[in-house]
Amino acid sequence: MNYELYYWPTVQGRGEFVRLALEEAGARYRDVARESGRGGGVSSLLTLMKGRRLARPPFAPPFLKAGRLVIGQTANILQFLGVRHDLAPREEGGRLWVHQLQLTVTDFVVEIHDTHHPISGSLYFQQQRKEARRRSADFLKSRAPKFLRYFEDVMARSGRQPRFLLGARLSYADLSVFQVIAGLSYAFPKASARFARNYRRLFALHERVQERPRIAAYLASPRRIAFNNEGIFRHYPELDA
Amino acid sequence: MNYELYYWPTVQGRGEFVRLALEEAGARYRDVARESGRGGGVSSLLTLMKGRRLARPPFAPPFLKAGRLVIGQTANILQFLGVRHDLAPREEGGRLWVHQLQLTVTDFVVEIHDTHHPISGSLYFQQQRKEARRRSADFLKSRAPKFLRYFEDVMARSGRQPRFLLGARLSYADLSVFQVIAGLSYAFPKASARFARNYRRLFALHERVQERPRIAAYLASPRRIAFNNEGIFRHYPELDA
Repeated sequence: MNYELYYWPTVQGRGEFVRLALEEAGARYRDVARESGRGGGVSSLLTLMKGRRLARPPFAPPFLKAGRLVIGQTANILQFLGVRHDLAPREEGGRLWVHQLQLTVTDFVVEIHDTHHPISGSLYFQQQRKEARRRSADFLKSRAPKFLRYFEDVMARSGRQPRFLLGARLSYADLSVFQVIAGLSYAFPKASARFARNYRRLFALHERVQERPRIAAYLASPRRIAFNNEGIFRHYPELDA
Repeated sequence: MNYELYYWPTVQGRGEFVRLALEEAGARYRDVARESGRGGGVSSLLTLMKGRRLARPPFAPPFLKAGRLVIGQTANILQFLGVRHDLAPREEGGRLWVHQLQLTVTDFVVEIHDTHHPISGSLYFQQQRKEARRRSADFLKSRAPKFLRYFEDVMARSGRQPRFLLGARLSYADLSVFQVIAGLSYAFPKASARFARNYRRLFALHERVQERPRIAAYLASPRRIAFNNEGIFRHYPELDA
């Protein structure tokens, strides 16, 4: 199947979690809003999302067109791709567990985003800088360690030498945890140096995912947008206390 | 099957979305942390969640024990219950769509919670009151209308006289939207009076769910915890501008 991914073209954002799954699967997909010319660009995204044509409109990007389905919500898209591309276990308990982990990543990502936008996504960082410093301090002291400790613990329970969250087999949740570790390292390099010492399994998982042939090829390609200060993970040195 | 729900005993919180599904399904369940005596209470919840016994530990309540499965993350639990209790369509496209709606409710709920706790969940409201006023103003002006308009539009696209989000049939997402409307009406009565005029389909949906025999019986029972200022939906008059 040829997929069409719809996401904002200048940031990794939530779309990146989907891109990583598509790349690891070796799936064929168009990254529609990044294409120029007819049938591409942000206008194609907006036309589909805001138009009256869809009976099941997405609330926001990313969304994935797969044949006649238009699927929204990152974790939902990953769940769909997971069963199709062997990025999740087949039996119900395993599928629910990977999805549970993914939804916990979702929660973490909201909190990461809100470190720089604790008041409103429609105000600039500079308009909520004081609040961002306060929220980030709490995030780095309490919330990030709570999430990281949880995922570290999940790996510890997966076996004696777990390679992935579920033990021996890669799942889409591993790709997402890779992205979170990469993003935290970009946004909060000082804090992340501490995290790397405390959550060794997770940082080893990050390395392991990074070295997978398809992921390595993707990261080296122009398809991977660089981290920047418009996305979820933003580097403001004053927040990295 | 007899389910065991684990959630904090003194608030509706995220557990309430699960309770509503269990009640509508007429399922047999224990609300473990609300029971007194042996095998009940918060200690049972903490023992299971923090213990070393589970190979697949939840990050936080609510979680549901269903036979040998322990399932965490509200939307994930609902997805599981949906297929079992006819609270979601059977075909893949419909299942994904209901889950997509539920994950959008999840996003909305985070933003509702953060109106009173924009800086940190571990500080008191009084310690972030100024920030809460700023965040709430943005929420009521921009974010709440964006979410409500979206769900209103979903109903509008579901048919000429849609009774539920998917049209004719109730799904677990309807129960969750009911809960959000009920909660907003408690937390922000003044703003909600305006919302009721602008989003008539959603407020009619709220009435319709409230009048379902099992839901009505549940709401009138002691099993329904009253809204209070410890949960997601809190009434601080100063935030309801």
